[in-house]
Amino acid sequence: MRLLITGGAGFVGSRLARTLLSRGQINGQTISQLVLCDQFPAAPDLAADPRVVVHTGTLLSQCAELAHSHFDGVFHLASAVSGECEADFDLGLRSNIDSTRVLLDMLRAQTAAGAAPARFVFSSSVAVFGPDDAVPMPELVSDTTLPTPQTSYGMHKHICEHMVADYTRKGYIDGRSARLMTVAVRPGKPNGAASSFFSGIIREPLAGEKSVCPVSADVSHPLTSPRATVEGLITVFECSRQAYGGRTALNLPAINVTVGEMLQALENVAGRHVRERVVFERDETIAGIVARWPKGSVSPRANALGLFAEKSFEDIIRQYIADCQASPHAQEALKGLAP
Amino acid sequence: MRLLITGGAGFVGSRLARTLLSRGQINGQTISQLVLCDQFPAAPDLAADPRVVVHTGTLLSQCAELAHSHFDGVFHLASAVSGECEADFDLGLRSNIDSTRVLLDMLRAQTAAGAAPARFVFSSSVAVFGPDDAVPMPELVSDTTLPTPQTSYGMHKHICEHMVADYTRKGYIDGRSARLMTVAVRPGKPNGAASSFFSGIIREPLAGEKSVCPVSADVSHPLTSPRATVEGLITVFECSRQAYGGRTALNLPAINVTVGEMLQALENVAGRHVRERVVFERDETIAGIVARWPKGSVSPRANALGLFAEKSFEDIIRQYIADCQASPHAQEALKGLAP
Repeated sequence: MRLLITGGAGFVGSRLARTLLSRGQINGQTISQLVLCDQFPAAPDLAADPRVVVHTGTLLSQCAELAHSHFDGVFHLASAVSGECEADFDLGLRSNIDSTRVLLDMLRAQTAAGAAPARFVFSSSVAVFGPDDAVPMPELVSDTTLPTPQTSYGMHKHICEHMVADYTRKGYIDGRSARLMTVAVRPGKPNGAASSFFSGIIREPLAGEKSVCPVSADVSHPLTSPRATVEGLITVFECSRQAYGGRTALNLPAINVTVGEMLQALENVAGRHVRERVVFERDETIAGIVARWPKGSVSPRANALGLFAEKSFEDIIRQYIADCQASPHAQEALKGLAP
Repeated sequence: MRLLITGGAGFVGSRLARTLLSRGQINGQTISQLVLCDQFPAAPDLAADPRVVVHTGTLLSQCAELAHSHFDGVFHLASAVSGECEADFDLGLRSNIDSTRVLLDMLRAQTAAGAAPARFVFSSSVAVFGPDDAVPMPELVSDTTLPTPQTSYGMHKHICEHMVADYTRKGYIDGRSARLMTVAVRPGKPNGAASSFFSGIIREPLAGEKSVCPVSADVSHPLTSPRATVEGLITVFECSRQAYGGRTALNLPAINVTVGEMLQALENVAGRHVRERVVFERDETIAGIVARWPKGSVSPRANALGLFAEKSFEDIIRQYIADCQASPHAQEALKGLAP
């Protein structure tokens, strides 16, 4: 079984790669080779695995080279993110739509040459949802909620969902699209994303640093853990077409949680002194963006596949702490835990 | 006001062009030039109008040339049809998705150079709807029904709806998408389309010819007239953004009618001897395709713009008869009317 992960050096992609290498098989078949394609170099521990082949460069430039290989399965995670797409419209179209089409056509050529259609999981996003004047968004978005994207990134993701569905209908691939919810707690530094604070208000206090929360405590959002996200992608890859059902994208599970509940969970897990490192300083721009995001989600199709979110946000914080403890950077990331 | 109609030699495009030239203005502004772009030559009466400029060739090949012009408004009707897209996957992607993107980028360049965003009406289709195993289709599809296209053509139309919405959000165009229902009665000969019989069972008997109906009398479908379709496109072009509402596509109005009701209407308008030229010979392939189409539609947003379907299917038949009487081909097309 030869697998490809696009975006294989990213946060979710690296974790997916480690999980797959550790399992050694997928869908009952041994993973003989795992190709990681990303514009950034793969993590050293991954690159050192004898089963791993690393390709560094844009996906579009890689596809000509990758076309000489044969893939039994693909996890397509590579994407320009929402801020990049808003800043550079052409980059977004090229990175997200054109790259996906070239990748799909590469797999279609493989099928035309006689191979079985490759199993293909596309990582879509909760960003396909948004409020449109003509179409009110429900409080909780579901698998069947009408997507009306309010960003180019969300539009790209939704367009790719439809391409994956049609290439699948034609028998060129065996494609499935799973919508990732907002993943927390992301390690590393704050970034420019409007959603950055969902990780920041947990990560920074645990590292002993002050964190600014730009929205009010009653803001609610569907959050999920890195673990549940990777489990979701693998399960959607492995399930039968009948179990997946139809060709429409499905929502991966999330916990619908308010900022206030997140901070209470932080206090419960790490203590009051950690929580008190979070201060509220309203940022009208961020608050305005976040106000247009879904307040929560439901995921009946993923649930039917046996996928569920963590039981509580405490569990997500504990997962982050355990991940840090298992990594060489534990000292820095958790130095705020000491009383 | 310089206007462009892509697909300007087609059935709907030609009728739209005639209506616009006859009105002489749109949105209160005089139409100084009307560019008709199509892979087929424009109708002679249109080409003879001094305001009309004809471009013949594929839209993709035309766009480089058209880019030197400036357009205040565009009706984008050009499209490879559903049978073509199923037969030639690449042709469909090129004709429907790539061409639309090049056209949108041409208008975006115009805006970047300082022009007001061009008013842009995209003709989408009821083909965006279909039944998916995971998402049951309602009996009547509405503006807010989740599109799950079951053909490449429907997928292309839906993808273009989203591109139009995002180029509009960014201020590159002032775009609106109107979903055309199945237009009847189309003049001319039967074609290979599965929907061909919806026109054929009216048109052929009126011409004195036998017609075969491949589905049972209880099959229901949303049908609309050429007149209402053209009125819908112009109204969607002229309305304010506030009246259009949001950026999501809207359904144009239709009459939801069964084949049995269509034939009763034919008898009421043209007589029993005309209706009796229709025979039922079930075609399992066509019946199977049609069974996956919407049984009807509702169009609350179009209704709010003052758009309504004909009151009865009789009115649609009378419109076809009046159109034929006004054309040089009346004798042939209506020779079955004589008792």
